[in-house]
Amino acid sequence: MKNIYFTAGPAELNPKFEEFMRQAIDEQIGSISHRSGQFRKIYQHCVENLRTLMNIPASSGIFFTGSASEVWERILLNLVEHESFHLVNGSFSDKFYKYAVSAQKFAHKFEKPIGEGFSYGEIEVPEYAELICVTQNETSTGVQMREADIHKLKRSNQKRLMAVDMVSSAPIPELDLDLIDTAFFSVQKAFGLPAGLGVWIANEKCLEKAKRLAKYDGVTIGAHHNLPVLWKNYETYETPATPNVLGIYLLGKVAEEMNKTGIETIRKETDEKAKKIYKYLETSNLCSIAVKNPEHRSKTVVVADTKKSSKGIIEALKEKNMIVGSGYGPNKDTQIRISNFPSNTMEQIDMLIAALKAME
Amino acid sequence: MKNIYFTAGPAELNPKFEEFMRQAIDEQIGSISHRSGQFRKIYQHCVENLRTLMNIPASSGIFFTGSASEVWERILLNLVEHESFHLVNGSFSDKFYKYAVSAQKFAHKFEKPIGEGFSYGEIEVPEYAELICVTQNETSTGVQMREADIHKLKRSNQKRLMAVDMVSSAPIPELDLDLIDTAFFSVQKAFGLPAGLGVWIANEKCLEKAKRLAKYDGVTIGAHHNLPVLWKNYETYETPATPNVLGIYLLGKVAEEMNKTGIETIRKETDEKAKKIYKYLETSNLCSIAVKNPEHRSKTVVVADTKKSSKGIIEALKEKNMIVGSGYGPNKDTQIRISNFPSNTMEQIDMLIAALKAME
Repeated sequence: MKNIYFTAGPAELNPKFEEFMRQAIDEQIGSISHRSGQFRKIYQHCVENLRTLMNIPASSGIFFTGSASEVWERILLNLVEHESFHLVNGSFSDKFYKYAVSAQKFAHKFEKPIGEGFSYGEIEVPEYAELICVTQNETSTGVQMREADIHKLKRSNQKRLMAVDMVSSAPIPELDLDLIDTAFFSVQKAFGLPAGLGVWIANEKCLEKAKRLAKYDGVTIGAHHNLPVLWKNYETYETPATPNVLGIYLLGKVAEEMNKTGIETIRKETDEKAKKIYKYLETSNLCSIAVKNPEHRSKTVVVADTKKSSKGIIEALKEKNMIVGSGYGPNKDTQIRISNFPSNTMEQIDMLIAALKAME
Repeated sequence: MKNIYFTAGPAELNPKFEEFMRQAIDEQIGSISHRSGQFRKIYQHCVENLRTLMNIPASSGIFFTGSASEVWERILLNLVEHESFHLVNGSFSDKFYKYAVSAQKFAHKFEKPIGEGFSYGEIEVPEYAELICVTQNETSTGVQMREADIHKLKRSNQKRLMAVDMVSSAPIPELDLDLIDTAFFSVQKAFGLPAGLGVWIANEKCLEKAKRLAKYDGVTIGAHHNLPVLWKNYETYETPATPNVLGIYLLGKVAEEMNKTGIETIRKETDEKAKKIYKYLETSNLCSIAVKNPEHRSKTVVVADTKKSSKGIIEALKEKNMIVGSGYGPNKDTQIRISNFPSNTMEQIDMLIAALKAME
């Protein structure tokens, strides 16, 4: 019997994954040259469908990397000469901050305890910060930052660049990518695909900054996947190095499928499923909602405090072929994490809630 | 009708690719956590099979990246404080050199014209070079450097580190990885898998150097996939970021399959097929061997000068469902490139030669 994955990524695969993989095998996608017209069409198809799905402006470039973690480094090298500013409230936003330190940038952070989020009004951006780094959905804690707060933060910082980590939420948040300078995600979360592909969206202001930094003495924008080289190749739907061609093909297919359903429908379903999970957790004897402020609760990764060790719950669900994640880091034994991605159907969510209820 | 790919990568897939992919789908490899015991077993299985196949010492670490190009940068950041030295005789060895320049290293090169290779006796390593960068098989020109020459070069430079690019030849060359400090390849060449995974092998001397450089002011070993972090994770068969889990699974399966055949047999077959292609080219009226020195002719990527435009030959072969590559860069119209990877069977090579003969 197959498992149902409610894990925050790698995650339950898109219901059409096998069909798309079968098509890829039939079309010999694993063998085609990344310098061929066939590949350029695959890149273009993927980009066009992502643009529709996420309302990405035509003037922004869309690039492929090995992972979203790679994008953290590329953003810091290409967009920051001296200072970055990070909103940190969990392991992944902290990793973004630590990448900045390793890249020898002067990195500022505004840190919140685990389970807490950020609202616009409380954020003071350091005077010389060139880049504001926001993690829209903190996968480790199930905390999200609302789109409206992110938009206000950018509007009041027009002269700085803003980067938004959408790793475990894209394409669900209604982020204004006309306003935000750069954003990125990986495919093994809400897109329901195997890991091994990061997607980086950046506007022309990012490109200008990278080109300017490349001319400065003592600053490196990196040799591999730097923004000017990625952009130049992207203009003809090519890549500087051999990319994960199969991954790009599959992402294009999934994005196309999502566009057929319509992003509004997907967002509405995500909201409904999230409400159902949180509603159950409000009255559960087994676990409770970890994120106290309803405005900061993630729609795609629900974190619950468990009243006994999370291990027992995880194992009991596994016996019923349902896989949920443990808490992250220090909360491994006291929390569970439940994905609410588009591949997790309402029927699956109902089954999970029923299984949790049966354990009470 | 399916195409047969004689391209230098992406290339003809391993004959068992579909079977292994089917197994991966059945085992839900696309959904499993990269922090699970199941993933650690996949990493370990892959590493153990690569170790057997390529005779990699137990003391060396084996790591996964998004591509071999990524490894170029990681090697330069982690193993070079000031100066690197590059043997350049084509587009890919030149890119390795240019990555060093972009990474702001003082990069020396010894350059040869297209189609020429390097022998040990003629190489003078600059006095302060910390790292010697050798491209064992230059994919753009079909020139290889013999294992014995590489070994002599390292033996006479014991105090420097040596990096060998085996991108389009691994696991065919009999390189002494006890002697060579670091080597790397990608999976879409001789392993016959879809692109999206680089493999980096490094010994403890590399780790020591990276750790030393990390302590120096003004030197960065990189934030993403730096060697100490990759190594620490590797010790428990983990990865710092979510890797291409499916790619690692498939590589382990292909390496296991190659071990069943035995590397000696695979090398012998590669030799026999290469001899057959070169023998045909010696007397062909259509094309001739591009690499004049027999000792420098690649066993895995055969490059031929075409007597008329390569385009006609490539298109005529395509009509027979055989895909060969054009020349690289400036030689696009005057050369063809033919892969001789383990996935290209003797039967396929015979078909290709017959088709070329029929065109004469």
